Amino acid sequence: MCPPKTIAAMQDRSVCRRSFLKFGLGAMATATALSVEHAQAVPVRPTSFSNVMDLTHLLGPNFPLFPGSPPFRIDTLSAHQEDGFYGNLITMAEHSGTHMDAPVHFAADGLYVDQIPPEALVVPAVVLDLSTRATQDPDTLVTPDDILSWERRYGRVPHNAAILMFTNWQARLGSVETFLNTDSSGVLHFPGFGKDSIDFLLTERSIAGIGVDTLSLDHGPSTDFATHFTLLSSNRWGLENLANLNLIPPSGATLFVGAPKVASGSGGPSRIMAVW
Amino acid sequence: MCPPKTIAAMQDRSVCRRSFLKFGLGAMATATALSVEHAQAVPVRPTSFSNVMDLTHLLGPNFPLFPGSPPFRIDTLSAHQEDGFYGNLITMAEHSGTHMDAPVHFAADGLYVDQIPPEALVVPAVVLDLSTRATQDPDTLVTPDDILSWERRYGRVPHNAAILMFTNWQARLGSVETFLNTDSSGVLHFPGFGKDSIDFLLTERSIAGIGVDTLSLDHGPSTDFATHFTLLSSNRWGLENLANLNLIPPSGATLFVGAPKVASGSGGPSRIMAVW
Repeated sequence: MCPPKTIAAMQDRSVCRRSFLKFGLGAMATATALSVEHAQAVPVRPTSFSNVMDLTHLLGPNFPLFPGSPPFRIDTLSAHQEDGFYGNLITMAEHSGTHMDAPVHFAADGLYVDQIPPEALVVPAVVLDLSTRATQDPDTLVTPDDILSWERRYGRVPHNAAILMFTNWQARLGSVETFLNTDSSGVLHFPGFGKDSIDFLLTERSIAGIGVDTLSLDHGPSTDFATHFTLLSSNRWGLENLANLNLIPPSGATLFVGAPKVASGSGGPSRIMAVW
Repeated sequence: MCPPKTIAAMQDRSVCRRSFLKFGLGAMATATALSVEHAQAVPVRPTSFSNVMDLTHLLGPNFPLFPGSPPFRIDTLSAHQEDGFYGNLITMAEHSGTHMDAPVHFAADGLYVDQIPPEALVVPAVVLDLSTRATQDPDTLVTPDDILSWERRYGRVPHNAAILMFTNWQARLGSVETFLNTDSSGVLHFPGFGKDSIDFLLTERSIAGIGVDTLSLDHGPSTDFATHFTLLSSNRWGLENLANLNLIPPSGATLFVGAPKVASGSGGPSRIMAVW
């Protein structure tokens, strides 16, 4: 059984073992329980680095949101002149800016954002470049062939990887309209992962999650959100609105996923950095 | 001149050069401008690792806040049964949970949280263990001698380091009262950094920031917040309410500081992980 889904939960909780096993990390389940008393360092893929790149967009009230999401607000609580210091109240939907979709966002029995084990947040990055295809077809999808094509060049997808789609969608951030790319019928148009690519990754490879530089893991015209459901039901995470994926190596970087550790959270704005 | 402090700022901005130079990283200023168009990988201290430890407390409505701060709220916006997916609205003061104080929190001309360059967020960790002293004196302060004592054992504080104070204050998280430790006169009692230790670090060593496992960089009884003012006015950052500092090496770990990238932010809940 998982811990009760109480909003008021405050103390660190042990990761639900059943869900945890879905990560394919059963052997480490005991060692990675997250309670303060029992926290232990957990092994990750041995890595060396001497460069860092920020993959996070600046978040503010004008950053494009998925239609229907309440606006991001920042309201000043304290000001230097009046109070001697400066601070704000933030009001935001969890799925704002460069952010994580935790498994529970679509899977009712999935992990909350705070339950994702740290070793699933420091992972090898695989970058698939769909930028040329996205210029020709804004609805283009990541396919199993895209992953196999990457493997022919760089070798097999590493264990516990993050598979990241680069389409240069950030070039459209000049306006909300071009980023959402809604047609006259109200249908969104931007690239995403095809369900078949998720099926392939879940059955044939070992991944921690996926990421896109667009607004959604599914491509714009999706109405069934099959990619979200399939991926998140497997207790993998998704990242949306990533920046600068063209500026990290297609193979060999390590992703640091600074997701919020909010009790009962479905995801949230995350600081994402790559090192290599 | 720094960019105008507009709340509505959305696009990535170049880091204010004048402020940036205060980081002592002037030679890299051009290379690290944060605009999407000009983003480049920036060098950090060469690092190898194969372990990760989460230094972040679980954030929820019951996590202790500095007196006067509005409560943390999480309100469900969408639910699985009704909407097919789950998501929440978060309402919070920036200085909630394990969080960053950006320079502008106390320094009117200091960097906003989004302006801190990435190479100041992936830094060597130095852990000072004050846990024994904190048991005897809850108001104890980090002194220059504590840093020199660490150096006698582990060598000189590395360039661009984060100096982290461990007092085992997380053992008091069972109740807000014991964590705040307020006396009958309303005075708070918990450890922090003495101003003389900040003066020493700013003049004699090279640091990116400091961190504490208590509620404030200044110790509880402080009324002048001299440590906040001195540190943040130098454009270094501070981290408060860190977890698990006893579970990382006192020397040799690298800190990932997953601070929010919010336009005009004074700081905010951050995902902090250490690797080594």
